[in-house]
Amino acid sequence: MEKPYVLGLDMGGTNSVLGIVDARGHVLARTSIKTQEYKEIDKYVDALYNEAMKIIDSVGGIDLIRGIGAGTPNGNYYTGWIDGAMNLPWPRVPFAELMSKKFGVPCKLTNDANAAAMGEMTYGAARGMKNFIMITLGTGVGSGIVIDGKMVYGHDGFAGELGHTCADRSPLARQCNCGKKGCLETYCSANGVARTAKEIISTTTKETMLRKLDVDKITSKDVFDAAEAGDEVAKEIFDYTGTILGRSLADFVAFSAPEAIVLFGGLTKSGHWIMDPVVKALNDNVLPLWRDKVKVMFSDLKESDAAVLGASALAWE
Amino acid sequence: MEKPYVLGLDMGGTNSVLGIVDARGHVLARTSIKTQEYKEIDKYVDALYNEAMKIIDSVGGIDLIRGIGAGTPNGNYYTGWIDGAMNLPWPRVPFAELMSKKFGVPCKLTNDANAAAMGEMTYGAARGMKNFIMITLGTGVGSGIVIDGKMVYGHDGFAGELGHTCADRSPLARQCNCGKKGCLETYCSANGVARTAKEIISTTTKETMLRKLDVDKITSKDVFDAAEAGDEVAKEIFDYTGTILGRSLADFVAFSAPEAIVLFGGLTKSGHWIMDPVVKALNDNVLPLWRDKVKVMFSDLKESDAAVLGASALAWE
Repeated sequence: MEKPYVLGLDMGGTNSVLGIVDARGHVLARTSIKTQEYKEIDKYVDALYNEAMKIIDSVGGIDLIRGIGAGTPNGNYYTGWIDGAMNLPWPRVPFAELMSKKFGVPCKLTNDANAAAMGEMTYGAARGMKNFIMITLGTGVGSGIVIDGKMVYGHDGFAGELGHTCADRSPLARQCNCGKKGCLETYCSANGVARTAKEIISTTTKETMLRKLDVDKITSKDVFDAAEAGDEVAKEIFDYTGTILGRSLADFVAFSAPEAIVLFGGLTKSGHWIMDPVVKALNDNVLPLWRDKVKVMFSDLKESDAAVLGASALAWE
Repeated sequence: MEKPYVLGLDMGGTNSVLGIVDARGHVLARTSIKTQEYKEIDKYVDALYNEAMKIIDSVGGIDLIRGIGAGTPNGNYYTGWIDGAMNLPWPRVPFAELMSKKFGVPCKLTNDANAAAMGEMTYGAARGMKNFIMITLGTGVGSGIVIDGKMVYGHDGFAGELGHTCADRSPLARQCNCGKKGCLETYCSANGVARTAKEIISTTTKETMLRKLDVDKITSKDVFDAAEAGDEVAKEIFDYTGTILGRSLADFVAFSAPEAIVLFGGLTKSGHWIMDPVVKALNDNVLPLWRDKVKVMFSDLKESDAAVLGASALAWE
């Protein structure tokens, strides 16, 4: 009998979420552990195993599990290693091998943004699409690229770092954590939006309800609430952010000519405030042949499920 | 018996070059016609046929020809149409179908930069590579992208327009023929180099032997000759051009994580004058994980053969 289920793992810097997924993309059971509680990788894998076995047993036992798919920070599809993940207690470990040995089933690995793109392709807004780009707008900006129906991993497994393409080559470009200047993620992540809000508040005298907040703690949610209430500065922040993102998307379109760009993550909750300037800037900056032809859409997966679903999709391969 | 030869066509705005190619990439015979002499597509195809039959007969006749591969301006691999080629007398025609009917063998089409990349992958510097990006530095800047051993055509067949990604988002960015501003090709094509030379000569008082030339007729060859003779302004022009190209290449690396970038076309004749600043800017602008890891190389195909070879490679598919 074909084994009917897979185990998906979404490993974040804070939580590690596990889910049992069937072939139609239903999450039958889920559980989680705290990632940072385990300073040694073996202890972490043991804890994952113990927790996973509870939900695995609830669906009929390990014999029904075809494999494990994991989305992790800096997960490398080719090598199965986590490689250079500075936000984890074990930045460099052969994770797929460790999991596979512990569970006795095959384990495949990819990075978290690729996992989200896999989820989108298999179960979400990009179902049936062979060419699309997924942009994750979270704390940082990540990306997963699908060409001709396949995830792009590149020569070394690290393809799709679009958050670190250059959005601003001027001397005033923002400093990125990666060491470079002007990276897209310094403008279009949740942190980027907060940075823009802080800049406008501290360098202009424009009237805005955002001034009432602690300038170091403004979130994209605060900016959204202000925009909804008619605040002009909040709208300006989204216009600025969306314009920068749309311009960069135009360059991505020139690379792989995708059918669609799928936006995912916290910032998408700002709806049309972010979507409108993105679409305008994209169409203002693509070659005429692509004008008004490339779809821009929000992910339609529940954010809590997308990464687990995407990771689990790897295990069906 | 397997048919041992294919016919390759490199259609340029000026010349259309035909070659008979064997499976090892030897051009057994070649000929050409003047593209612009035929104002109607049927007359052009007739002329190609008459000319091609001479070399086809010289190798044993049409029964030995497996198919035709054509690289053309704006050639679309999916549809077989030339679509929007403003430098041809027939900007929109179903070229593959017309050729296939006339010759009685299958014809496949792609754009000229993709053809060059196919040639490089099949017979040139990128032989054996599964992930590379070919950048053609000619009158304009073109590109052909190979991922996982396959040409990237994208959703609509027009992927790989990297010459029209944005190299400069400042208000002073150069105007491109495509209608956009700041496109890479306004800086890094042969025309771009000439434009840079003209700018430096007309806006500075720097001493340079380039001043002795007609400022509207300076070519990249003139700049190369001056650099070789020790001219500091000529070196500055290559540094400027190469730095802009290298920065953009860094963004392309973040997209598809290629093993190598292959540079092709007239500007590569400037050798280390262009290569050195390209490599420096690339490594200054990639994420640390790619620093000094992505090869940058010049094409090692004869320029006269590369496009014919690349186009012909399509016919083996």
